[in-house]
Amino acid sequence: MLLLERPVPRVALLTLNRPAARNALSLALLEALQSAVEALGRDDDVSAIVLAAAGPVFSSGHDLKELTAHRADTDAGLAFFTETMTRCAATMQAIIACPKPVIAAVQGTATAAGCQLVATCDLAVAAENAHFATPGVNIGLFCSTPMVALSRNVSRKTAMEMLLLGEMITAEQAAAHGLVNRVVPQGQALEHALAMAEKIAAKSPLTVSIGKRAFYEQAQMPLAEAYAYTADVMVRNMLARDAEEGIGAFLGKRKPEWKGC
Amino acid sequence: MLLLERPVPRVALLTLNRPAARNALSLALLEALQSAVEALGRDDDVSAIVLAAAGPVFSSGHDLKELTAHRADTDAGLAFFTETMTRCAATMQAIIACPKPVIAAVQGTATAAGCQLVATCDLAVAAENAHFATPGVNIGLFCSTPMVALSRNVSRKTAMEMLLLGEMITAEQAAAHGLVNRVVPQGQALEHALAMAEKIAAKSPLTVSIGKRAFYEQAQMPLAEAYAYTADVMVRNMLARDAEEGIGAFLGKRKPEWKGC
Amino acid sequence: MLLLERPVPRVALLTLNRPAARNALSLALLEALQSAVEALGRDDDVSAIVLAAAGPVFSSGHDLKELTAHRADTDAGLAFFTETMTRCAATMQAIIACPKPVIAAVQGTATAAGCQLVATCDLAVAAENAHFATPGVNIGLFCSTPMVALSRNVSRKTAMEMLLLGEMITAEQAAAHGLVNRVVPQGQALEHALAMAEKIAAKSPLTVSIGKRAFYEQAQMPLAEAYAYTADVMVRNMLARDAEEGIGAFLGKRKPEWKGC
Repeated sequence: MLLLERPVPRVALLTLNRPAARNALSLALLEALQSAVEALGRDDDVSAIVLAAAGPVFSSGHDLKELTAHRADTDAGLAFFTETMTRCAATMQAIIACPKPVIAAVQGTATAAGCQLVATCDLAVAAENAHFATPGVNIGLFCSTPMVALSRNVSRKTAMEMLLLGEMITAEQAAAHGLVNRVVPQGQALEHALAMAEKIAAKSPLTVSIGKRAFYEQAQMPLAEAYAYTADVMVRNMLARDAEEGIGAFLGKRKPEWKGC
Repeated sequence: MLLLERPVPRVALLTLNRPAARNALSLALLEALQSAVEALGRDDDVSAIVLAAAGPVFSSGHDLKELTAHRADTDAGLAFFTETMTRCAATMQAIIACPKPVIAAVQGTATAAGCQLVATCDLAVAAENAHFATPGVNIGLFCSTPMVALSRNVSRKTAMEMLLLGEMITAEQAAAHGLVNRVVPQGQALEHALAMAEKIAAKSPLTVSIGKRAFYEQAQMPLAEAYAYTADVMVRNMLARDAEEGIGAFLGKRKPEWKGC
Repeated sequence: MLLLERPVPRVALLTLNRPAARNALSLALLEALQSAVEALGRDDDVSAIVLAAAGPVFSSGHDLKELTAHRADTDAGLAFFTETMTRCAATMQAIIACPKPVIAAVQGTATAAGCQLVATCDLAVAAENAHFATPGVNIGLFCSTPMVALSRNVSRKTAMEMLLLGEMITAEQAAAHGLVNRVVPQGQALEHALAMAEKIAAKSPLTVSIGKRAFYEQAQMPLAEAYAYTADVMVRNMLARDAEEGIGAFLGKRKPEWKGC
């Protein structure tokens, strides 16, 4: 259901592997994804994570068959729907909280919570044939959790159009709107995402983790608070061994050797 | 002053109709617009609203002659200015609070509070000859209420340039900056806006209203709060009849029939 | 270290003048910049400020040699690092708080806190050969204070890419992402920035100061609060002499004469 590989040193590759189900995010897959991201976050041998998917669809979002089956529960599905939506929100926030950058490699269509997953990743590479949509409105279930990630990536009217019309946008449009970082030829999304991950893995993992955390923290603060917080982050970062090494190497025109402390 | 038509089923068309006054937003027109939006929000036969304007100007913003006339009041205009600015802010927020999406059809120039009106609508279609500006700075009255909507649509430096220089931008620039969703040939803005409204009107009005409200609510929340809120919205949406119908129709490959509950 | 000129009436030109040190923001330069911006903010003869730099580099960010020298302090640099980062944050916020618009004229490379400076200015003009980066991650010191300004200018994934990869972007990319307002031919950034400053200087300085302050205040407020605040700002602006003059001149089709009150 979720494959974990280590294709290059210090980079983990997670692959959604339910291609026959269009990589629908069943409760079990969400749980597996959250657990994997949290474990990789604690793994000192991993510096960056690529999130890919098997088959022509990146992810179609929630597993509608699974959700529908639970309508037969004595509570008409209330407990299961609550568990699924809560787990989905927790999984997305685990990606944000993970100290290692997570890069989506989108080779095909990413819709609803699948689109949310792409929006949630720190970086995203899309193949030119990839498409994106938040089409819940078409089936009576508005993409209300996906909008949290979507509206923090793209402009307000773009988000509203995707959410209200539920239509597909192309990879080029997704890049122009800020949903993905770059568009690459068909079949090369994974390769490019891994290349980005390798670049990040060549940097100090301590520095990257300090920065990723600070980014999302300060984004939610008023300006004065954000500056007070990040100035303190900078001072602590300066006192770390890797900053001393990195700055010394830069001034000495040599290659730094990171210790991650 | 404000025309209400029903050009297609479930779609309301509001037309600013003071073309000789460049559709200036007098106090009376603001009141009429707010009342109309609120009434359409409660009208079960309406699923989407298009906001258009008669004549070559979409709206020139506040009615400067009306404002100036009140300088002769015993309080030098204080009470009238306060009433106008408060009403303007209330009208804009009524559009946000309206459970039905509001789509601007901009056939000409939209400036100051007229530009704010476009920025405030959920979606906007502009004719290729449309122009946009927040030129209050040129007449000594900074576009301070328009900036609220503008700065929630376009990037910070784009907003600052429009506000500080007060110059016109083209429809193409407005689309690139996120102020409008799309640019269409001259004379076709209304037609395209109505087509978007019809698409929205074909969806479950309950689902659309749940989603529109959630969108603006979560946009103001920190991430964890936004996810807690929207996860709950999703659960309640799942339990609604229209979600059961829509998901069932999707899985059964048939057309859904919405009941709006 | 910091030059102050008055090339045209009502416009101040500040030039970072440490070209041999790539205009690195030493503690002394930050102090000089903050003092100059605050003094110009109080100077009734100045309506707009252009911030330029001598030499091929706009600014390389913090002065790494100066910071490194203080590792020999008895506290390993703690006090000096704290003073520098706090001063940097205060200088950036002084630009935001300055009632006069500040326009960056970027003729070359702006990196780290140098890129932050561009992001912090109200407006920015870049020469076509200018480049931008937040490369601290490459030397073990994440650009955590720069991210505050950067992430309030560009989309989330763009900011993350710049911060995590530390690579240069071109002036064209910077304009597309919202980091600068416009790109001009090599050698013309200063000229264009001064032209923008002159346009702003032709407007009511009172009106501009009301608007700049309101912009940054409302940007941090929820919608209802932002509208209550700006509606009040508009009423007070209407009652100022310059609004009466400006609106009267507009209706009378004559040129306004600003008094700044």
